[in-house]
Formats: sequence, structure tokens, C-alpha cells
Amino acid sequence: MIQDSIKTRVVGIDIGYETTTYAVVDVRGKELAKAVFPTTDFPNINNFISYLSEQIIAMVEANGGYESIRSVGVSSPSGNSLTGCIEYSPNLPWKGEIPLAAMMRDRLGLAVAVGNDAYVMALGEVTFGNAHGMNDFILVELEQGLGSCVFSHGHPHLGATGYAGEIGHTVVVENGRQCGCGQKGCLETYCSKKGIVLTAQELMAESNVPSLMREAKELTPLTIASLCDQGDPLAIEVYKRTGEVLGLTLANYASVVDPEAIIIGGSTSRAGKWLMEPLDNSFEEHVFHNIQNKVKILVSALDKEEHNVLGASALAWSVKEYSLFK
Amino acid sequence: MIQDSIKTRVVGIDIGYETTTYAVVDVRGKELAKAVFPTTDFPNINNFISYLSEQIIAMVEANGGYESIRSVGVSSPSGNSLTGCIEYSPNLPWKGEIPLAAMMRDRLGLAVAVGNDAYVMALGEVTFGNAHGMNDFILVELEQGLGSCVFSHGHPHLGATGYAGEIGHTVVVENGRQCGCGQKGCLETYCSKKGIVLTAQELMAESNVPSLMREAKELTPLTIASLCDQGDPLAIEVYKRTGEVLGLTLANYASVVDPEAIIIGGSTSRAGKWLMEPLDNSFEEHVFHNIQNKVKILVSALDKEEHNVLGASALAWSVKEYSLFK
Repeated sequence: MIQDSIKTRVVGIDIGYETTTYAVVDVRGKELAKAVFPTTDFPNINNFISYLSEQIIAMVEANGGYESIRSVGVSSPSGNSLTGCIEYSPNLPWKGEIPLAAMMRDRLGLAVAVGNDAYVMALGEVTFGNAHGMNDFILVELEQGLGSCVFSHGHPHLGATGYAGEIGHTVVVENGRQCGCGQKGCLETYCSKKGIVLTAQELMAESNVPSLMREAKELTPLTIASLCDQGDPLAIEVYKRTGEVLGLTLANYASVVDPEAIIIGGSTSRAGKWLMEPLDNSFEEHVFHNIQNKVKILVSALDKEEHNVLGASALAWSVKEYSLFK
Repeated sequence: MIQDSIKTRVVGIDIGYETTTYAVVDVRGKELAKAVFPTTDFPNINNFISYLSEQIIAMVEANGGYESIRSVGVSSPSGNSLTGCIEYSPNLPWKGEIPLAAMMRDRLGLAVAVGNDAYVMALGEVTFGNAHGMNDFILVELEQGLGSCVFSHGHPHLGATGYAGEIGHTVVVENGRQCGCGQKGCLETYCSKKGIVLTAQELMAESNVPSLMREAKELTPLTIASLCDQGDPLAIEVYKRTGEVLGLTLANYASVVDPEAIIIGGSTSRAGKWLMEPLDNSFEEHVFHNIQNKVKILVSALDKEEHNVLGASALAWSVKEYSLFK
């Protein structure tokens, strides 16, 4: 059989709570074209998929054509790679089970793989980032929620039903803060963006220590980190508490998993040493002695936006090729 | 090449703190011969290995001969299957790193595989027990210590350095009970044999509630369980507290791993419903809602002794054949 085209490109898509990014990416991870639109413009999933598919077809036609595209990878919160569905996302506008892979495959005529953001981020790290060449590592994503993915023997551990990695909903404080999932004391209530801001508010209420946080127009993990840079003691204390609880939880996780590295990704990782130093101290204090000072704790090499589209492109390469016309 | 014998047998060895069991086992898990001797008779590792090897050679010669034996599998506390060593066991008489696989291979002229007891127990369960046919499950072993093993996609997750599974040394109570590992508040200090007895002693000291435990000649997890059978309220409370902390920890573990089942093995699992009911309640209360009421919680199908020799025989089949004379 004469092969009249070689498929050297994929489409990577990152569905975020606020924006959706899509790109045509080549085999070396080079983005040949990329665009962004607000996810929130589409409260209806059918409209979302139709718009996204039309945009992708237009982008593909302007960048080498349909014949050059092998497959499609999608990163989505609550994306289940075993079913290809978005399942019961608490924060996306679309409720219940959304058969995302099937809906996009029908419109594009291409194989579509779906993964949750932490899994896709881990694929991005192992393909293009700090986990390159590693077989056993944990990726933790610090965003609105807290996701994680364990690579075991070079493969992502997905779990029996595709729900593995819910470190954000492990209970770290019995009868602690109320979580959106119904539980109390979940890690997410302390280390998500909202959780960190809540810790700041609690600290301000607890004491009269002067702090620039009291005058801040908007408190976010990154504005708090910039106040740490200015030497604000209460802002530093916010990250100390955050790093301590995260470090203890990751130590327990590592004692069970024995990873080569833990990679901290997501926008909150940009707080840098204010988060990482207390995290590291708490981790080494609590981890099982046989692996003490052996697990590398690294910040993700890639920015979230870039990361997830690149990770989604790596996911696309992992599925079998498919065409409606074969 | 003419094959003049088919190797249809292996040797399984279970090194325990108190006794060591070894058996010649056929391909279907039938034990053709089995013997036991006290581990504690051999404070010197060289003497232990020499005695064990001589006994095995004699047993093999009386049961089909050397030519019928394919390989050897050993279950040992702190056995590292990546290195073939026993590494820094806190409770065995031999200190530091013991190159067990190499020492036995040199004496027996056979391939030797080593694994820690939880990993070997999981192999036993997946080959001959309740995990048969499962790809993703967690085995937890309740003994003097607490070990665990996760099967992921049909393979045991061993970790980057072979130390995975140390659930016993995850911190469940900050500044809690002192653990032998140097940490405070490890799960093992609450749910090991010693931990359960300590809970009983604390409960007796806390209150004046009458209890048969106060008159018991010897308190062990199984004598406490038999007092539960007699309706002793304080004995029942001991297992309630044990099951609650274990159920919460396993819920966190399951939220991260998403297993099909959790299998509880080890002698304390024989406490039955007194342990399993509070464990199950606490598990379902705390596990992430997407997998609530989906994870089977099972008691191991096999007794510890039988279990570990059978598991060790399954481990033996997993290594490549080897002979000094090839």
C-alpha cells in the first residue's frame, strides 16, 4: 500500500474552568497554531463542542490540512481516560456524564483521548518537562482544586474506574473545614486557591499583627506570595501553614508510593520558596526513614497553559489512530 | 535440544519473626512437602542460610529431586524485590542489608526472588485467593507491623527503590503515639498487634467500665476479639477505635489509588466483624464520593502461614530460570 501522507501532527485541547485552549502540535512538541476562547461562553455542552470542533477544523485546514492530523488529546477537569467522559465535574457548567471523546470523534472523524488535568499534566512533564525519563513519580497540581497522578513503572496509574489521584479529597483534618465534596477536612480545603485565601483570612482574624494583606484589594495565592517577597510576616505564615499540611500529606503519599520525584505544578507552584521550603521541611520530617532525603521535590518545568496543551498533545499520541473513512 | 526434564515445581519460603516455613510447591499451588523451624534459633545470618539451604536440599531430594525445581521465592519482612536483599528490618535479628537472594542462589544453584511479606501476600491473593483476576487492588497486612501492596494494571507497584507500601508509617495522628521508626503517630502504633493492645490498656485506664479484659491473663488482638464475642463492651470499643482509624486511612489511600478491592490479611483480620464493621463504616464515610460503595472490602481468603508460602511460590514462578550449571 502506498502511504500518501504521514501523520506527524496532533491536536491538543485544554478545557479549563475559565478558558479553553487548543493547538496543532507537531511530533516534537512545537505548537504550529494556538487559540483560546472563554469556556464560560458555553453553558450548553452541544454548543461548546460544535464551536470547538469548527474552530479546530478551520485551524487544521490553515495548518497542513486534515490529512496531517493523527489524533486528538483533551485535558479536562474530571476527565476520565477509561470512559472518555467528563464525569460529574463540580466546577464546569456541564453536569453529569458528558461523552466528550465520542462527541468530538463524531464531529472530527479522528481518534480522541480524554484525561483529567493532573494526568495530562503528568504526561506533559514526562514527555517535555522535569519528569523526562522517570518511571515512578507523583505529579500534584495546585489550582482551584488539587489533583494528582502517579506514574508506576512508566505508566500512569488510572485506578479500577479511572478515578485515581483524588489527593485533594483525602481527609487531613478530622472534622476540619467543610469541602464542596460533602466531606470535612479535605486537603483541598487547605491547599487549593480558595483554601490558601481562607488561611490568610483566619490568620488576620486570629491576631493583630500588622500585615499588608489587610489592605490588599484582592487576596489570591499569588498576591499573597508577592507580599511574602516584601517580607510580610503574616503572608509568610500563610504559606508556612500551607506547606506544612501539604508536606505531611505528600510524605504519607510517598511512604506508600516510593516515588523518584514529586513534581508540584499548577499556578500556586509559582509561589516558589515561600511554599516549597516549608513543604520540603515538613515532607522530610514525616516521610518514612528509608526514603528520607531521596525523593526529589521539584516545581513543574512548564507553565500551566503551555503544559496542558502539550500534555494533551502527548495524550493524543498515546491513542490508536482512527478515521471515519477507513 | 532434547529436554530431559520439565521443571514443574518451585520452593516457597516464608521468613517470619518467630518461625520460618519452607515448602516444595507444584504449579497448581499444591504443597508436596512443608516444614517449619524457629527463626529465632539463628541470630547469625550465615548459620540461618546454611541451615535453611541444607534443609531445602534434603526436602527437594526426597520430593522429585533438584531437576524438578525451577526456582525459589522468599517472603521476608523488609525484603526488597528490586535488590534481592533484606534491608534494615527493625524486628529480624539480622541488621543492615542482607543479600538474601545472592546468598541462597550461591548455595542452591537456583534463581531466587525476594519480596516483602505484603507484596508476597498480594501475589498469593491474586494467584490463589480473593484477588484472583483483579488488576487493581490494595492488600493490607495486619501483623506485628502494617504492610501494604498496590497492584496497578495487574502488576505490583514496587516504587522507585522497592520501598513502596509503607502504610504502617504514614502519620495519622500528629504528635501521636511514639513509633519504633522514630516518627510519632504512625498508623502502626494504632493498628499493629501492639497498638491494639495499647488501645485496650488506654481504654481500661480511662474508665471504670467493667471488662473481662481487666482479668485476662494475656491481652492480644485475638483474645480481645474473643471477648467481643462474649459481648464485652470495652473489648468491642477497642476494635471500634482500631477500625475507625484504619477505615479513614484506607479511605484516603483508596481516594488516591481507586482500587477494585481492599483485601485485609494477617492474623488480626481474624477478628472478623469486630474489626471489619467499624472499618467499613469509617471507610465509606470518608472515601471520595465517586467511588463510595464501589470498593469491595474483603478479608483475605488464606491463612497467613499458608498464604505466604503459596505467595512465595507464586513469586518463584515470576523470576527467570537460572542454574549454576548452564
